[in-house]
Amino acid sequence: MIKGTNGYIPGLAGVIAAQTRLSHVDGQLGELIISGYPVADLAQQAFFEEVIYLLWYDRLPNQDELVTFTSELTAQRSLPQATLALLEAIAAENVPPMDALRMAAGTLSLGPVDERQAALALVARLPTIVAAYWRLCNGRSPLAPNPALSHAANYLYMLTGDIPAVALTRGLETYLNTVVDHGLNASTFAARVIIATNSDMVSAVTGAIGALKGPLHGGAPGPALDMVFEIGKIDDAETYIRAKLERGERLMGFGHRVYKVRDPRAEILATAAEQMYQAAGDMALYDLAKGVEKTAVALLAEYKPGRNLQTNVEFYTALLLHGLGLETDLFTPTFAIGRVAGWIGHCLEQQREGRIIRPLSQYTGELARQWLPVSER
Amino acid sequence: MIKGTNGYIPGLAGVIAAQTRLSHVDGQLGELIISGYPVADLAQQAFFEEVIYLLWYDRLPNQDELVTFTSELTAQRSLPQATLALLEAIAAENVPPMDALRMAAGTLSLGPVDERQAALALVARLPTIVAAYWRLCNGRSPLAPNPALSHAANYLYMLTGDIPAVALTRGLETYLNTVVDHGLNASTFAARVIIATNSDMVSAVTGAIGALKGPLHGGAPGPALDMVFEIGKIDDAETYIRAKLERGERLMGFGHRVYKVRDPRAEILATAAEQMYQAAGDMALYDLAKGVEKTAVALLAEYKPGRNLQTNVEFYTALLLHGLGLETDLFTPTFAIGRVAGWIGHCLEQQREGRIIRPLSQYTGELARQWLPVSER
Repeated sequence: MIKGTNGYIPGLAGVIAAQTRLSHVDGQLGELIISGYPVADLAQQAFFEEVIYLLWYDRLPNQDELVTFTSELTAQRSLPQATLALLEAIAAENVPPMDALRMAAGTLSLGPVDERQAALALVARLPTIVAAYWRLCNGRSPLAPNPALSHAANYLYMLTGDIPAVALTRGLETYLNTVVDHGLNASTFAARVIIATNSDMVSAVTGAIGALKGPLHGGAPGPALDMVFEIGKIDDAETYIRAKLERGERLMGFGHRVYKVRDPRAEILATAAEQMYQAAGDMALYDLAKGVEKTAVALLAEYKPGRNLQTNVEFYTALLLHGLGLETDLFTPTFAIGRVAGWIGHCLEQQREGRIIRPLSQYTGELARQWLPVSER
Repeated sequence: MIKGTNGYIPGLAGVIAAQTRLSHVDGQLGELIISGYPVADLAQQAFFEEVIYLLWYDRLPNQDELVTFTSELTAQRSLPQATLALLEAIAAENVPPMDALRMAAGTLSLGPVDERQAALALVARLPTIVAAYWRLCNGRSPLAPNPALSHAANYLYMLTGDIPAVALTRGLETYLNTVVDHGLNASTFAARVIIATNSDMVSAVTGAIGALKGPLHGGAPGPALDMVFEIGKIDDAETYIRAKLERGERLMGFGHRVYKVRDPRAEILATAAEQMYQAAGDMALYDLAKGVEKTAVALLAEYKPGRNLQTNVEFYTALLLHGLGLETDLFTPTFAIGRVAGWIGHCLEQQREGRIIRPLSQYTGELARQWLPVSER
């Protein structure tokens, strides 16, 4: 670990603050393991419900267990009346979707009778919150969850009112599986710090959503696709990107603080996006994005030699979520809909740990100021 | 710092995770410095508004600055309509006050136009939330804040509808000043982790409230006075406490994980409580509590030799807050009303730091599980 002045460790860089069986990130090798499985094996094949079960119980469910778990989750999808009323009130105030999600998630203490129910309710209801809020902001009434649909399909249904095509549901499911957990990222760490005081799941997840909304948290894929749209056609890519790099600007969607090689999630999401755009019968945007990526990686190698800046998860996340019909404002809330299963898995681990997370601060202020009443200042 | 297996540091014990000019805790010497001043000098003399200013601007305000700052705070006391509506809805569901505070605080993104306004609104409105919710839970209508009263006096007014006696306001003010900051406690750390992603004040404070409600967080003074009530008269103290210690039970209100000598805040709160009970003209409970304390400390020395278990801040907090007329359920929310000024001060420091807090996890799970579809499990 990197120590600064007198033992202070800025950003806790290199400090091991938790043990986990949920995921293993190897940034040098470009590997991500989710509860024992390479992320690629899970992401493209598993139902999201199976991955949640895996993270919480450390094994995949058998058929009966999956049926039971899925129906427990499905039963929790509806929102308490107070939560819906809050969403209606704040939609009138144009609150950004991540703030709305944080506020509404915070009210989910209403209802669940124990911590397991709270965990199920949090995972089951975040999509209901996001979809309801999105519709309210667009002048439409929220839709009741459809119990015949899977978690992923129901989210798309609640947004649009249409039963989604199989390829879209699979695309979303692959995305949710891919981002479900990623070591001790800042939002997951916030959740662990909160639950470690013996607080509750709703408090921990509410704190995690608050951390996730910060732009320094990875997984804010909004701007990554903007460049592709601005470039518009592949012949213009080199000129555009070269000009940007000449101006010293950063390319969104490339480079990652952990991965020094290609982010393994990028490949999975690229494949998922390709399949989804293929199924929809229009490859134009996908082909353009691939072309832009190739040009960008080549030019980054030229302008930032030795940095090995590769496409990160945000670039293909944006392409995939755009293909699902989601607007940019929904990208980070949709990330939360996946990551909440990981947050809760970490909370379950931290609860078993049973001790508070309580580091020290180093005082850098004055030591012996003399009190004077305000009249003498 | 204490390293466990392979570099994992449970609870981040001994790790320095922040530099701060806000407070300095010396557990060996029993010292607490608040922005350069011994806590005793500030607690008994300063207005709470002065201490907030001190923490945010690293110096005490002069007369003009104090007048301006106080009026800025006073102007922010009223709650948005959506926040009040939420409190009404959840009062009907018997949500515990700390959950209600967390939920309502989370909605305070409504209104403030920038982070400074958000900081002022959070400090100004937590008392309004707690008092409004308390009244709603007791079947009474919330009261509008009284702009003629100080922050502390207005909180008591909004709870009871009566302008409080000077001695009560001074007692509360001393309490708020005493608990305003205390190094990198778990709720403060949660706030720093959240704001460090470049998230916002409301998200950070909401997370901190979530952490504060956990029983492992210090400052849950509810049970500390129960023993005094159960003992009832001083002649029964020794028999009662001895029986409790013989059964191996813990005495609430004694011992602290940081302070190895007497917590400096206990002395301040004991004096404040004494003055307040004196002003009220009934010393019975105060005298009983002092007697119980003396007996408890003596018996703890006998039963736990070498541990040097002293009265902690919770014991006299409970006595003081009880004397203010607050019921036990209001103790932790009132703690939050003081500590929020510290949380925000730490957020301001962390924002200047400008980097994410992102430690590592250590993977302890399996590495190469073989995916089987659910039909084959």
